[in-house]
Amino acid sequence: MAVKKKSSTSITTSKNSTAKRRSSLPNGEGLQLKDNLELEGITFNYWALFDGHAGTGAAVMASKLLHHKIAEHLVEVVGVLRNSAVLPPTCLNDEPEVVSNTRTLTRAASLRGSMGTPGSPSTPPTRFFIEKKIAHESLVIGAIENAFKEMDSQIERERSMYNISGGCTSLVVVFLLDKLYVANAGDSRAIIIRNGEVIPMSSEFTPETERQRLQYLACLQPHLLGNEFTHLEFPRRVQRKELGKKMLFRNFNMTGWAYKIIEEEDLKFPLVYGEGKKARVMATIGVTRGLGDHDLKVHDSNIHIKPFLSCTPEVRVYDFSEHEHEADDALVLATDGLWDVLSNKEVSEAITSFLSNCDPDDPYRYTLAAQDLVMRARGVLKDRGWRISNDRLGSGDDISVFVIPLQHGNKLT
Amino acid sequence: MAVKKKSSTSITTSKNSTAKRRSSLPNGEGLQLKDNLELEGITFNYWALFDGHAGTGAAVMASKLLHHKIAEHLVEVVGVLRNSAVLPPTCLNDEPEVVSNTRTLTRAASLRGSMGTPGSPSTPPTRFFIEKKIAHESLVIGAIENAFKEMDSQIERERSMYNISGGCTSLVVVFLLDKLYVANAGDSRAIIIRNGEVIPMSSEFTPETERQRLQYLACLQPHLLGNEFTHLEFPRRVQRKELGKKMLFRNFNMTGWAYKIIEEEDLKFPLVYGEGKKARVMATIGVTRGLGDHDLKVHDSNIHIKPFLSCTPEVRVYDFSEHEHEADDALVLATDGLWDVLSNKEVSEAITSFLSNCDPDDPYRYTLAAQDLVMRARGVLKDRGWRISNDRLGSGDDISVFVIPLQHGNKLT
Repeated sequence: MAVKKKSSTSITTSKNSTAKRRSSLPNGEGLQLKDNLELEGITFNYWALFDGHAGTGAAVMASKLLHHKIAEHLVEVVGVLRNSAVLPPTCLNDEPEVVSNTRTLTRAASLRGSMGTPGSPSTPPTRFFIEKKIAHESLVIGAIENAFKEMDSQIERERSMYNISGGCTSLVVVFLLDKLYVANAGDSRAIIIRNGEVIPMSSEFTPETERQRLQYLACLQPHLLGNEFTHLEFPRRVQRKELGKKMLFRNFNMTGWAYKIIEEEDLKFPLVYGEGKKARVMATIGVTRGLGDHDLKVHDSNIHIKPFLSCTPEVRVYDFSEHEHEADDALVLATDGLWDVLSNKEVSEAITSFLSNCDPDDPYRYTLAAQDLVMRARGVLKDRGWRISNDRLGSGDDISVFVIPLQHGNKLT
Repeated sequence: MAVKKKSSTSITTSKNSTAKRRSSLPNGEGLQLKDNLELEGITFNYWALFDGHAGTGAAVMASKLLHHKIAEHLVEVVGVLRNSAVLPPTCLNDEPEVVSNTRTLTRAASLRGSMGTPGSPSTPPTRFFIEKKIAHESLVIGAIENAFKEMDSQIERERSMYNISGGCTSLVVVFLLDKLYVANAGDSRAIIIRNGEVIPMSSEFTPETERQRLQYLACLQPHLLGNEFTHLEFPRRVQRKELGKKMLFRNFNMTGWAYKIIEEEDLKFPLVYGEGKKARVMATIGVTRGLGDHDLKVHDSNIHIKPFLSCTPEVRVYDFSEHEHEADDALVLATDGLWDVLSNKEVSEAITSFLSNCDPDDPYRYTLAAQDLVMRARGVLKDRGWRISNDRLGSGDDISVFVIPLQHGNKLT
């Protein structure tokens, strides 16, 4: 299994990088890849973007190690993946079993207990020999998911010894056996631009998008709120003088809003608070998935944030064999610094128009397109601050962008 | 506020209704509506489908009471809803406050604690006066959500006194102020057919679609599994002879699969088991949202199922004012008995072709279209059993269908 390093198209800028606690650490900076890691002739390509906060430690460590963790997990199943004609065996090193699909049981029959439960010894064991078919790509997804989990555990274990500070979002792309796997934990974003059309390849994980997961956990384990926070959401902070009045609220199982009478308990600070870029978990962090942050606490308290954060990425799969790709088709990965000020459509139009004006033989045109995007998002310094098109405010955050050409996709395997 | 009863288009069939423990109780059977419930001139229309299991009690009670609960919650906010020019006030009976939007805080600034936390008394309270704008339709959604919750609580409270048995799925439609609210808890389904196109208006809640929610709860509160079940999922039942071997599994934060070494703990029965219509929670129930089921236990054990079930509906909104509706446009509500054998596309084509062959002045044509759908799903008795088109097996479940014309939508308010 060969790991190919692909980092030449990453562009990073920061207006004031030393003063920022959230730093950007593109793949290119810290990668220590073994280019000659070969196993049974399967190559995988890898790109990753780690957006750090509250210190650089987690981002640097993830950029150096996450691809190795993914490779380790893929090596475990490489024999199964190579054998694409046969579905992955349920049990490894096992003779293929005769699978007898049981007759269809109605729900009513099941409710009468006829399907057999652990407590009914009379149920013949053959009843349970229905077997789920697992696709090869599910094994790649599982490998990436478990690699993220182990990466986070390693940061936890070694953070004191190596003084690993902060946390980071992680956006990872694996290209393997004609499929692109985009794994995202955080608020970076990946899109594919194909023939000028945008195909979103990730979604963002923020206090707003994950409100119900966070509230549900707080509701089940209220001690995590340290008697300082309420799991309920209100449209704004509740004031003491509003005790006894009716205010809008919602809890973990509501998407709508209703009025409730304000009680003493509701005066606590809300677990999820603020809108858009200002939304925070326990008034502290604006991103709900990623690696690290094991020591992150609510300011001036002993309340840990980490239980509310998840290191699980959402993995989306894009099948290369289903599409033909032109020279201007690209996968764009970027940190929230870009997407805060430019829409998917603006990015797509910028890339398409930039690439069509380049010499098609220029190997640096994707790098230049990434640079162009960064400049568009940062803007130029005018008398009223940094401005982008239509006199909008430029991004004040760090901005990292990958522009990855897709036309060679089918030639790599 | 007027509640209009709309039940004439509901069609139910059951080949063997007395022997079935899962019974269908369409709106028309048990509704006791006060047609003259008027408040401030707002009318709402209501349709509902309750598919019972393990007894009829919950379904009958919900069909008699749920619309009253919804009406009660709507009455609370009717003054706010009428005042469509002004957004709902955060606090009721309060003077409108001057809302000062705070300056934009970066995540980095927040991590330094500058945004103010409960533990930092020096933070001026004005910092918190950012205020979320809540739309009117969110109040209707909240009213429906809370009505479901109260309905479930009332069934729980009164189940012994009135001998209320079983549970039921609930698919509810509320038409109010030019918007259609479709609330679904269970595995019934609603689609809108507009100009021959299908617009899905609900999704199903089953052990498979809610696997991660169920596994997450079991992982956080393992005592709910009663030492009989494992929260892990395997492609099939693990056998004792496989101890020490590697088998595919996934846990609550995985969508992919990976291999793990089988331990003693993994021999327990999986919390979620089976595929498609055979998928079950704790080998007992095939639907994960709805009302009732408070006494439901795993067969021959003292393990309660209810903690894993949710009474929260998913509510989708369809704005009538955004569309023109023709005579053949319809909202179709049906129990899983229909959707098990017919796809959305087949239902849409059947409705469109049936209605176009009717006399456009026949007031019963929607009722007849619903009857036609039921017959298509049940099939005809041949020598090899009940058969539908293409010699497929007919539905063995109960089948209830509403076909609701949409063309009068804009005239009702």
